[in-house]
Amino acid sequence: MEENKQQNVAQVIKDSAQDIHDKIVKSQKPTMTTPLRSLSNVAYHEKKGHFQMRGKSKIRTLTVGTVKTFAQTLKMMALSKELIDTDDMATKREAYYISKNWGKAGFDEQSESDTIMDDVEATFKINREKMKFFPEEKGGSVAGRLLVYDRDHEGSRLEIDCTKFGSGAYSIPNAVEELEFKSNADFILAIETAGAFQRLLQYGFWDSKNCILISMGGVPTRACRRFIRRLSESLEIPVYAFVDGDPYGYFNIYRTLKVGSGNAAHLSEFFCVPGAKFLGVTPQDIIDYKLPTHKLKEIDIKRAKDALKNDPFVRHYKQWQKAINQMLKMGVRVEQQAFAKHSLDFVVNEYLPEKLANTNKFLP
Amino acid sequence: MEENKQQNVAQVIKDSAQDIHDKIVKSQKPTMTTPLRSLSNVAYHEKKGHFQMRGKSKIRTLTVGTVKTFAQTLKMMALSKELIDTDDMATKREAYYISKNWGKAGFDEQSESDTIMDDVEATFKINREKMKFFPEEKGGSVAGRLLVYDRDHEGSRLEIDCTKFGSGAYSIPNAVEELEFKSNADFILAIETAGAFQRLLQYGFWDSKNCILISMGGVPTRACRRFIRRLSESLEIPVYAFVDGDPYGYFNIYRTLKVGSGNAAHLSEFFCVPGAKFLGVTPQDIIDYKLPTHKLKEIDIKRAKDALKNDPFVRHYKQWQKAINQMLKMGVRVEQQAFAKHSLDFVVNEYLPEKLANTNKFLP
Repeated sequence: MEENKQQNVAQVIKDSAQDIHDKIVKSQKPTMTTPLRSLSNVAYHEKKGHFQMRGKSKIRTLTVGTVKTFAQTLKMMALSKELIDTDDMATKREAYYISKNWGKAGFDEQSESDTIMDDVEATFKINREKMKFFPEEKGGSVAGRLLVYDRDHEGSRLEIDCTKFGSGAYSIPNAVEELEFKSNADFILAIETAGAFQRLLQYGFWDSKNCILISMGGVPTRACRRFIRRLSESLEIPVYAFVDGDPYGYFNIYRTLKVGSGNAAHLSEFFCVPGAKFLGVTPQDIIDYKLPTHKLKEIDIKRAKDALKNDPFVRHYKQWQKAINQMLKMGVRVEQQAFAKHSLDFVVNEYLPEKLANTNKFLP
Repeated sequence: MEENKQQNVAQVIKDSAQDIHDKIVKSQKPTMTTPLRSLSNVAYHEKKGHFQMRGKSKIRTLTVGTVKTFAQTLKMMALSKELIDTDDMATKREAYYISKNWGKAGFDEQSESDTIMDDVEATFKINREKMKFFPEEKGGSVAGRLLVYDRDHEGSRLEIDCTKFGSGAYSIPNAVEELEFKSNADFILAIETAGAFQRLLQYGFWDSKNCILISMGGVPTRACRRFIRRLSESLEIPVYAFVDGDPYGYFNIYRTLKVGSGNAAHLSEFFCVPGAKFLGVTPQDIIDYKLPTHKLKEIDIKRAKDALKNDPFVRHYKQWQKAINQMLKMGVRVEQQAFAKHSLDFVVNEYLPEKLANTNKFLP
């Protein structure tokens, strides 16, 4: 199955290159079409549960002015095919350095090679991990009721038991496509900060609540999102997000996790977690739990107002509009560790159990 | 042993509070003395292998103007004692939120509580982890020939085998003091970037070279440094650092790992890894391996010149002065993934084996 998918990517690359070659041989001008990557070219598809590109795209025609970009794009495609054929991979930075052997088609800065990589990805609608390109970043930590099946570098199967890490955790690899899972957990709790994750670990939360804890460490990386997505599909259990109560937590973290982001909407179908629900912290929690807060910053207010106006996800859900308006009216934001004001175990013994008893009240 | 150490911290706190109480009762003005935390108040002690505070300190006397800071410091000490007595812990952010219950002694911003925490730490010369305060950040990933012994939240002993994580890794916890280790590895390789770590994992480097791989992910966190330090002492094997060839890699990452930093010199004796040696990437490697480079930025040049002038570690070692001058003369920096220019396996099959065959040539 996996092998077939990889062969397909190689085939897609070959077909595209052949097409360009044919046109050049016939003295025609080859073109490349890339969808426009921005929030304005995105729609929220409720049934599918994620952002989708709308029709706008940019067409690049081979001319004297575009010849270098054209060559770079083709070299990048060739590198991908080579990596697939040799069952290897390259980080984005390595791909940049490999280009130093491409003569005049070499990149001057990694930002250039990253852009070409994004374009190729969007053109083929294949996520770059399938093309064997990986980001540098590591993708979060996991603890709790989960068995992960992986292979070592010699190909032997390994069982990784995430209940057996004590105060540590399992660190998600860059490539999660071939991992397999087994679990009898009731739900997955995706947590914004490493500190809150450590707190829940300390009190054995995954044990008492029979769940899987994932530390996203801020905006979840692609590997982390894909890991949660694959986990939720394979185990068929809900995903609850526990993040700070501020626009950054609501949109950059939660909305990206659930439906995707504007400039990577061509990937939403692979990377988003449509079934995710928002556990908290909500503006109403601030009142219900008498939480200490911080004043909203200028940038928070701007981000919230932008979301009300332009974010297809927020515009789709009245509940989110209500929550954001409540936050703007109260003029404050709240962090997920504010519960420590009451006591260190409050979040574990009071807040989370009360919320989890009413999952139907979670924000969508 | 561990319990004794913790009782000592509680005792130190109690004695200090008693002393202040006695002075107040006798209508004397109590004082608190904190060492000055900056590179100018630091010396490099070659025999001990780390930075040490010199004599300068600031004395705070209880007056109308200092009464709030005094109260906050005492409340912070009381919180530490409570955490020790209940065998709990608090993140730095949680400690800030707990202060919201301290009435007028509450902190307005976390930066204030962090500073008080640093002061208490420096005053008592006890690292804050021993006072049961932990940073938010997670501390790096580990793979290779290492068994880690930890306990689960119910106190049962666990064995964690770092050869069994496949493409993933073991994520170091915040608190590493009570972990135990077993290994027959020949050395520890501490790696700057997650990308280079993933590359060595992919090719089974820890298996072929019988070593332990640690991904520091930029400047290593306290937990990561303490983990490497405890590992190197308990296993009695060398630590080699593999980082980018730029001033940031040389000083912010390597020098901090090996001897400590200016504003945390009071902690060097716990957190530094005196036995660490610099494998690369060196300016000479750029020439020997024909590596692609980037031009030094203004900030790189400033940092390098500052180091030559003011860094006690650099001033101690002629070899480092030579390397930095060579870098400044060449005017370029190099990243540890630049080897990908030759081929993806070059770093694994050529560079590292050649360097490891001559560890006596490593920079100190």
